Amino acid sequence: MPSPFVARKTNPSSLKKKLQTILAAITGVFLLGGWAFTTVPALFNYSSYLVHHQIAHVSHKLNYYMSGHTFYDDPDFSYSITDPLKDWDQKRAAWLKEHPQFASRGANRVLLVTGSQPWRCESNLGDFLLLRLFKNKVDYCRIQGYEIFYNNAFLETKMDDHWAKPAAIRASMLAHPDKEWIWWVDSDAVFTDMEFRLPLDKYKNYNLVVNGWPDLIKERSWLGLNTGVLLFRNCQWTLDLLSAWASMSQLSPDYDKWGQIFKATFKDRDEARSSDQTAMVYLVLKHNDTWGDKIYYEDEYCFQCYWVKSIRKIKQARNVYVEMEKNVSEFRRRHAEVATQGYGALRNKFLEQGGYGKHTGRRPFITHFVGCSPCSGNNNVNYSGQDCVQGLELALNTGDNQVLRNFGYVRHQPGNITSWVFPLPFDEPAEINVNLPN
Amino acid sequence: MPSPFVARKTNPSSLKKKLQTILAAITGVFLLGGWAFTTVPALFNYSSYLVHHQIAHVSHKLNYYMSGHTFYDDPDFSYSITDPLKDWDQKRAAWLKEHPQFASRGANRVLLVTGSQPWRCESNLGDFLLLRLFKNKVDYCRIQGYEIFYNNAFLETKMDDHWAKPAAIRASMLAHPDKEWIWWVDSDAVFTDMEFRLPLDKYKNYNLVVNGWPDLIKERSWLGLNTGVLLFRNCQWTLDLLSAWASMSQLSPDYDKWGQIFKATFKDRDEARSSDQTAMVYLVLKHNDTWGDKIYYEDEYCFQCYWVKSIRKIKQARNVYVEMEKNVSEFRRRHAEVATQGYGALRNKFLEQGGYGKHTGRRPFITHFVGCSPCSGNNNVNYSGQDCVQGLELALNTGDNQVLRNFGYVRHQPGNITSWVFPLPFDEPAEINVNLPN
Repeated sequence: MPSPFVARKTNPSSLKKKLQTILAAITGVFLLGGWAFTTVPALFNYSSYLVHHQIAHVSHKLNYYMSGHTFYDDPDFSYSITDPLKDWDQKRAAWLKEHPQFASRGANRVLLVTGSQPWRCESNLGDFLLLRLFKNKVDYCRIQGYEIFYNNAFLETKMDDHWAKPAAIRASMLAHPDKEWIWWVDSDAVFTDMEFRLPLDKYKNYNLVVNGWPDLIKERSWLGLNTGVLLFRNCQWTLDLLSAWASMSQLSPDYDKWGQIFKATFKDRDEARSSDQTAMVYLVLKHNDTWGDKIYYEDEYCFQCYWVKSIRKIKQARNVYVEMEKNVSEFRRRHAEVATQGYGALRNKFLEQGGYGKHTGRRPFITHFVGCSPCSGNNNVNYSGQDCVQGLELALNTGDNQVLRNFGYVRHQPGNITSWVFPLPFDEPAEINVNLPN
Repeated sequence: MPSPFVARKTNPSSLKKKLQTILAAITGVFLLGGWAFTTVPALFNYSSYLVHHQIAHVSHKLNYYMSGHTFYDDPDFSYSITDPLKDWDQKRAAWLKEHPQFASRGANRVLLVTGSQPWRCESNLGDFLLLRLFKNKVDYCRIQGYEIFYNNAFLETKMDDHWAKPAAIRASMLAHPDKEWIWWVDSDAVFTDMEFRLPLDKYKNYNLVVNGWPDLIKERSWLGLNTGVLLFRNCQWTLDLLSAWASMSQLSPDYDKWGQIFKATFKDRDEARSSDQTAMVYLVLKHNDTWGDKIYYEDEYCFQCYWVKSIRKIKQARNVYVEMEKNVSEFRRRHAEVATQGYGALRNKFLEQGGYGKHTGRRPFITHFVGCSPCSGNNNVNYSGQDCVQGLELALNTGDNQVLRNFGYVRHQPGNITSWVFPLPFDEPAEINVNLPN
């Protein structure tokens, strides 16, 4: 079956050519003297005069968010993954001390980082899906009180494709010393349980949370962990790991050699290419003494679940949740969106005590459409692109129905229909009406 | 010049046909008994048993976000714009009293609501632009600490196109009693000043802020205000206004008649169609006694500026800002993104005291690409689609450069290049180095 992610008539090499042209243009501009210095505007002198003469009048009461000297004022400080940074934990601690209004918000400060390439998708459906995938993440973050940053720039020009990740994560860490956690979530991952909250307490002794299976890594499978969803603590350890990770990317003169090493190392790797995932698995396989202690392999819930299995879980869960809502009037109560966390915590108790787990009727937290490549249109040959699209539709609408419910609406058939939503009747789906004990 | 928003080969009526098919399918499902009741799953009895027997064990310590009886528990309460809602101010006040953790956050609680139609754009470039336009808004909200909701569902099936707005605004008000303001921003509006903060204090006696010119309204121009950006107070007055507004939409049996009335009323209206903007102008023209007192016509800054003029302002402002940064080292300091508000307040002082206003070198706050229709591809014939695309590029990258700066990067040519960003040198653009007084 042909892929429904219909690729445009773009020559595979045309993007590269386009980039070369752009790069040449930029170089030209630099040679001409840089962007801001080419003309002297009419306002130049006026502005210069005013700025000089009015400094003395500027209010001094604006420093609530501002501060004294911080690590940002060090000329050697660089956001780039190519430059080493030392003593980050001390620097960050000093910054937090200088900005107590952020430090006091507790250890649950999370910045979700996601993104896609700077240009249009090759598939006609791709950008529309990216828009909906982004909306899904923004909805989740709003409900949970997290912040979100969509990165659509290659910060390190050599590190494009999946290798854009480490540079974006590092820059986000340094731009957000206020955040304890930086959470990378691939663009093709969908939040299918909007109520589920990261169990951060569980990770208090760890610096990286990843979905993985240490036994599989030891058996030399490059599928021993998945780098589509990664939760990093904002600390020196992470900076060091990012550097070690990136040293096997296009930044390295040995990039091609790394691809060959990975192919030779992993029994199930057919391709001699260094990818971000092969490199990460290699790191923990060969240097577990260095990194292993601080990595938490999360497999208890769908930290990221492979979509083929996850779609089955979503279908199974639907009946469990309807039953739960029929039985417990509290779950049928309408409420403000901002109250969702409380209802989520209540649902969590019911699910736990009812024995509903990852494989027994609980909604998957994150459904990852790995291999579907909705943007490039080049989906994995193991399944049809049509399955990918249908799966995405179900996953996106499963998440969206949870959001819409707080706005009084529902999509009746989350698997089939994008467009139409309907008012949710009061007390839906009422039946048994067993109330919570007083 | 042909439009660069190349429309796909979609028959204009095919969307309508598709919708009719979808609607027929939904009706069919309803006749079959509804979505969740078709099968009895294997887990049914198990779940039912467990939920019944474990209610007693559920912790009672989960009610931090939950509450006693609220307006949501009233069976007559409806989110729909077709149903009247009374005493909202009292209901909302009671809810806030019940949830002091939200009430205590002050009067600056803003929910930005934006969105687009549920299906793909007709123009090939459209969805890519929508993605970037959404990112721009999410960036702004993250920096300012506002929340954002992207609505891509027609909550009221009859009210599609621009008329989707009132229903989405109303549902957002009711889902967010925690927010004092609901801020509608059209998808094709771009934040071109990320530091600028809504001057909410100025609006304390008003319930609606809109960019408009009362004199022009009196002269019977349907361009006397612009409904692309609307800031509504979350109150009964707004609910009443939304009802009055929507009563001239497709909800009304007199919808066609309204179109004719508007054409006859406005000297510059050629089309006999009731649009959300014509209806709003009509309301304030004919019923100013009812609504006028609580409407603030904002024209002091770019609450929303027409893109053709705004692009000129952006180009003019660039030199002013570079000058300011050269002169004042404080503006060249790197800092955490979360500290941006403080630097914005400082910049505001300089701009005010330097006499830089809307027409004299200040960055426009919001640049509205009205008439460009990047999603439908049917841009206004008064200018070329190429100008729209170039303008969008400049506006989006002007906003994005302010965000990227906090992550250590910059696009050198915001007007021309989407793809490549470069590390921002330390102390850029250093020159005079006049420090702030101690």
